[in-house]
This record gives sequence, structure tokens and C-alpha cells, in this order.
Amino acid sequence: MRAAADEFGLLVITEALGVEQLELAVNYADIIQIGSRNMQHFPLLWAVGELDKPVLLKRGFMSTLNEWLSAAEHIASRGNSNIILCERGIRGFDTATRNVLDTNAIALIKQTTHFPIIADPSHATGRSDLVLPAARASLAAGADGLLVEFHPDPQAALSDGDQSLPLATLPDFVEQTRRIALAMGRLIS
Amino acid sequence: MRAAADEFGLLVITEALGVEQLELAVNYADIIQIGSRNMQHFPLLWAVGELDKPVLLKRGFMSTLNEWLSAAEHIASRGNSNIILCERGIRGFDTATRNVLDTNAIALIKQTTHFPIIADPSHATGRSDLVLPAARASLAAGADGLLVEFHPDPQAALSDGDQSLPLATLPDFVEQTRRIALAMGRLIS
Amino acid sequence: MRAAADEFGLLVITEALGVEQLELAVNYADIIQIGSRNMQHFPLLWAVGELDKPVLLKRGFMSTLNEWLSAAEHIASRGNSNIILCERGIRGFDTATRNVLDTNAIALIKQTTHFPIIADPSHATGRSDLVLPAARASLAAGADGLLVEFHPDPQAALSDGDQSLPLATLPDFVEQTRRIALAMGRLIS
Amino acid sequence: MRAAADEFGLLVITEALGVEQLELAVNYADIIQIGSRNMQHFPLLWAVGELDKPVLLKRGFMSTLNEWLSAAEHIASRGNSNIILCERGIRGFDTATRNVLDTNAIALIKQTTHFPIIADPSHATGRSDLVLPAARASLAAGADGLLVEFHPDPQAALSDGDQSLPLATLPDFVEQTRRIALAMGRLIS
Repeated sequence: MRAAADEFGLLVITEALGVEQLELAVNYADIIQIGSRNMQHFPLLWAVGELDKPVLLKRGFMSTLNEWLSAAEHIASRGNSNIILCERGIRGFDTATRNVLDTNAIALIKQTTHFPIIADPSHATGRSDLVLPAARASLAAGADGLLVEFHPDPQAALSDGDQSLPLATLPDFVEQTRRIALAMGRLIS
Repeated sequence: MRAAADEFGLLVITEALGVEQLELAVNYADIIQIGSRNMQHFPLLWAVGELDKPVLLKRGFMSTLNEWLSAAEHIASRGNSNIILCERGIRGFDTATRNVLDTNAIALIKQTTHFPIIADPSHATGRSDLVLPAARASLAAGADGLLVEFHPDPQAALSDGDQSLPLATLPDFVEQTRRIALAMGRLIS
Repeated sequence: MRAAADEFGLLVITEALGVEQLELAVNYADIIQIGSRNMQHFPLLWAVGELDKPVLLKRGFMSTLNEWLSAAEHIASRGNSNIILCERGIRGFDTATRNVLDTNAIALIKQTTHFPIIADPSHATGRSDLVLPAARASLAAGADGLLVEFHPDPQAALSDGDQSLPLATLPDFVEQTRRIALAMGRLIS
Repeated sequence: MRAAADEFGLLVITEALGVEQLELAVNYADIIQIGSRNMQHFPLLWAVGELDKPVLLKRGFMSTLNEWLSAAEHIASRGNSNIILCERGIRGFDTATRNVLDTNAIALIKQTTHFPIIADPSHATGRSDLVLPAARASLAAGADGLLVEFHPDPQAALSDGDQSLPLATLPDFVEQTRRIALAMGRLIS
């Protein structure tokens, strides 16, 4: 993966599930991701806090904003304040969508903290037909970026096929979200 | 209120709390609103179903999409299918905002039903500093319109002052949301 | 129903869905029930507040304790403080059971208010195999009584069949719950 | 702690926050606890699955029963099926109590699995005045045991003081819960 990324000038982001996996991840990845289920796994927060790499901190799917920001502080307390927050949906009472995208949270983080915040509309909806509107809504709420799952053939994906978009739709997706970013004054047309 | 509306060519929307208030409301209002707490008050749903007026059906703050659409069907079953849905936020586990604006619901309603849907970012956030981003996110998710509280002097408002925007900010609010509507292809610039 | 109740010395409890149904209900019922979906239907609360009949006020399935007690105060403010509260389960994030029985709420109401409180383990679980343990848990948390659905043949019930117990199991149910009531010092053996 | 336990014939239970802490914990503890925030920390689940010690698996405060049982299976899949489940309250929408004790979950686990299940009424309520009723409710729902926090002087406790009971109330607590256990046929009087 590292070789492919270097060849095409891409960045590699890898999730570290535990402290014991961190050494390997650091060698190959440009950004270390802390997953939603590990947002309050404190030994891991402290360990990435001692790295010199950006950390992508996903919100726990049932974590309050205070708990999320407190997790970020656990990381920063060890010296690494290069933290990107990622809203990926919270658990609600309705099974019509897998999660509830919390755009209020994006707006509140944006207004009250200095952290960059991105959104993951794939996990936040769990349904490929809702990923584009959720992406647009996130940007319109103030998100600085998006983390979206594409797959050459979602039906054949080993995991998360229901929420992945076909790779062929990428240009349209970029165009649609670009318009919102422009309306937000985030891009120069 | 009716006289003022006629003078300025405005529409009057009034919430009916119960069947017994409906006769009065019908005489003065152009649109009858069913509030969030009454979304499953079936006698009222049946009664407005027999009117010849548009009905604004707010989502219960604890209602699933199925329950919401079922409430709309209770109205339509009596003959009145002139129904506008309004997403106004659902109850979550975090007290940082009063409610969670459910933009996924807006997108899903838009894609799977023929009902027009608007959003109420004032109640969905409960905080005036989040109303504009929530309004933009709603439009970007596909909402057809907005219901927003403005007040000449929110600090002095008898109710909902925390979530009302100062009337003086209306032009900027219109401009900001108009940009998103344009990006969505909903307006001609 | 009134005639049958009189013959066997039973009390009749009837749910009033709206103010307009109250006159009829008052003529036939000993206790007026306000259902979960109507807990915040204020015109109905005010109307039963002017009656001289006990009111059974079910908790909204997503209402806080403050909202529930506030609804009781709306009734009492009109003069009728003969109010029985009924915990019937709240909406959670897990679909394994229809609702979450909130025994903490029962205990807190019991310790901080003077209202009698009963539990409805049928609605709180939605599954007949959990009704007995939920009934026992409610009593052990301090509930003053139970509202339980029995049916001669649950499979053939028109509604709520999944949560109804066969009438033939009533003696065992009474014996099992009686043991808990005795352990709580609520009955003399 | 190990020495004190040996002197008085007690068992030591210790929470392991991460895989890297496990070696130390194994040397001193009789039971390894997986905390609520780590219920889906899979590397830790796999690691305790290879031990020859009982594991106390607390329910995630936002986890469904399926997720909880799936976590238990992750442990058992590595060979260790000596697992005790512990219900410790789930996150709800009401701040009147810290969590909602899910007695339905206790009853359902008891009826559909072979795992022993205990309850932690201290965390499930977060308020010392509700710990005893929550403990009784748990036993009446079918719990096999209790995990309760006592402290010689809760006001002076470094953590969890709000939910700890004064040590002086232990005899009364035991007597009150013993009565429920007797009513459940779990003890011989």
C-alpha cells in the first residue's frame, strides 16, 4: 500500500486497533486513524499522543461532544496536537438509516474549537443512496473535508458494500460536493 | 393576524393543539400546523384530513420515519393529501444542542416519497449560533424550504429566545442560504 | 363493559384519546387513562384536570422524568390531583425488545414525589416471555402496582398479541409477583 | 492487593485497559474485567480469550445485546468460555440518572444464553439513593449476582463518590437484596 501511495503521490491512512499495532502503522501510514469503537481506549490515545504524525479521531457513535473533545485532549496532553476530528454518525432510535449524521455537531465543533473536522457520510448513513446528500449537508454545516467509501464494484465488496459508492460515480460526486464547497466560499471556482 | 397578513400578502400558519381548536384556526389560517407533540394525536390527524387546507406535519421528536409517514397517511386517508412534512430535530443523548437535526431523514423522505419537506433549524438546534449552519445543511440534504424563527429582539422574546435570530440578520441569512439553494439547482440566480 | 364490571365488582379504566371523547369516557369509566402518545397533549391534560375521577398518566416513551412530572402538574393545576403515574418503557437503540423498562425512573419517582406509580411490563418489553421478569423488577424497584395484558388466546388477539400472556398463566404470574411484593414488605403473607 | 486478598480469602478482580497491561493483571487477579468502553476493543477480547482465567465482560453503555454477545463470542473463539456478563446501564436521553438500568436485557440474556449475568447498580444509576432499588430490580429480573461500590466515606472518595454507598449500610443492603434473592428461589433461608 505504501509503495502504491508513493507511486501516485497519495497519502496512506491506517486505523490502529491497539497500542501493539502502532509501531507497524507508523512505518507505513501518513495519518493514524482512531476508530469509533476506540475513541475512549485511553492507552491508545496516549500512545498516538507521543507520535509525530497526524491523528484522525473518529467520534464514538454514542459519544457526546464533551467526551469527544476530552479524547482529543488526552492525545494532545502527550504532545501531539495534530488532530483531525471526524463525525461519522451517532446511534439513534430509527433503523431506517444505520446512524444519524450529526450536522449540529460539525457546526458546533467548527465554531467552538480550532480542530479541523471532516465527515464520513458512508458510515453516517449506511446506505449508498444517501451518501451524496449527507456529504453535501456536512459541507454546508461547515465540514473541512470528507471521508467517503468508493469501490469499483460495491456489490462484490467484502465489507461495507451497502454504503460504498461505485467508483464510476466519483466524478459526479466531486462535482456535486464541489458546488456546495464553492457556495460556502471554501474553494475558488 | 389575518388582517396584517392580508395587508402585506403573507400567509398565516397556525398550530392547532386539539380538534376543538380547529374551527377557529380554519377561519384565520392558510396552513394548519400539527406540532411535534401531537404527531400521533390521531383524532386531530383525522380532523385535518377532512379539511381543504394544507397541513404542515412536524415530525415527533422521538418518531421514526415510518411513524411519521404513517401519521401523514392517517391525514391523507380522510381525503386531504396536501401535506408538508417538517423535520425539526430528534432527541439525542447529548445536551450540547437541544435536538439532533436529522438530515438523513430529509434526504430519505425526499428520495422515497412525494411529500414536500422543509426543515426547522431553530428547534432542531435550540441555539441561535447554529441556526444558519443547520439551515444550510438542511437545504444541502434536499429540503424544499425552511421554517426559521426571527425576532426583533431575541433577548426580550417571551419564548424560544435562545433559538431566535435577530431580525437584523435576516438579509445575510437569506443570502447565505440562497447560495446553497443555487448550488442545489433549486433557484435561478 | 360498565355492566360487566358492575356485575363482578371490577373497575373500568378507559383511555381518552382526545378532549372530545372525554364526556363519554367519564360516564362509563372509573379511571381515565392518558396514553403515552398523549402525555404532552395539553388540552386533554387540562380537561381531565377538571374531572373528579382518578387519572392514569402513562409516561411518554421518550419523555424525561421532568416532562412527565410537568404533565402531572398540568393536570393538578386544574384541581384534580388524583393521579397515578405509569412507567411503560422508553425507546432505546436496541430492537431486541420493543422498549426499555426504566426501573430507575420508578425508584426515583417513588423517592422524590408523592404520586403512586405502577408499571406496564407488557408494553415495556413487547415480548410475552419477558413480562414476568419485568413485572418482578418493577415491584422490586418500588412500583405500587402493575398493568398487565392477559388474553384467553394471545395468538388470536386482534392487537398486542406478542406481548399478552395466556390467561391460563395468571395464577402463576400472581404467585411469582406476590413473592416479590412480600419481600418488599408490601403485603402480609 | 493480592496479599490482602489472600489473607482474608477474597478474590481480586482487575480491569485490563489494554493488551499490554494483561500480563501484570494475570499475575495478581483472579478475574479479569473488560470495561464498558473496551467492550469492542477486539485485540483485548482476543487476548483474554487465550487466558485460563474468568473474564467479566461489561456491556458497552451504547451496545445492543447482539453486539455484547458477539463480543463474548470473540473471547470464546480463542478458547476461554469462562465469561461472566455484567449489565451496567445504557445511555439514555434523560439526565435525571446517569444511565438506564436495562433489566429487560438481564431477563433476555438469562432466557436465551447460558452465560451467568450480574448487574452493576452503582454505575447503572450514578446516584447512591437509587443503588439499592436498582440492585433489587436486577435480582428480580434474574441477575445471578451484583457488583456494588461501597466506601468507608463516600464524600471523601477520589472517584465515583456519588454512586458509592457508605460501608456502614452494607448489612442492611445485604438483608434487603437477600429477601429478593429468597423470593426468587435463589437462596435457602
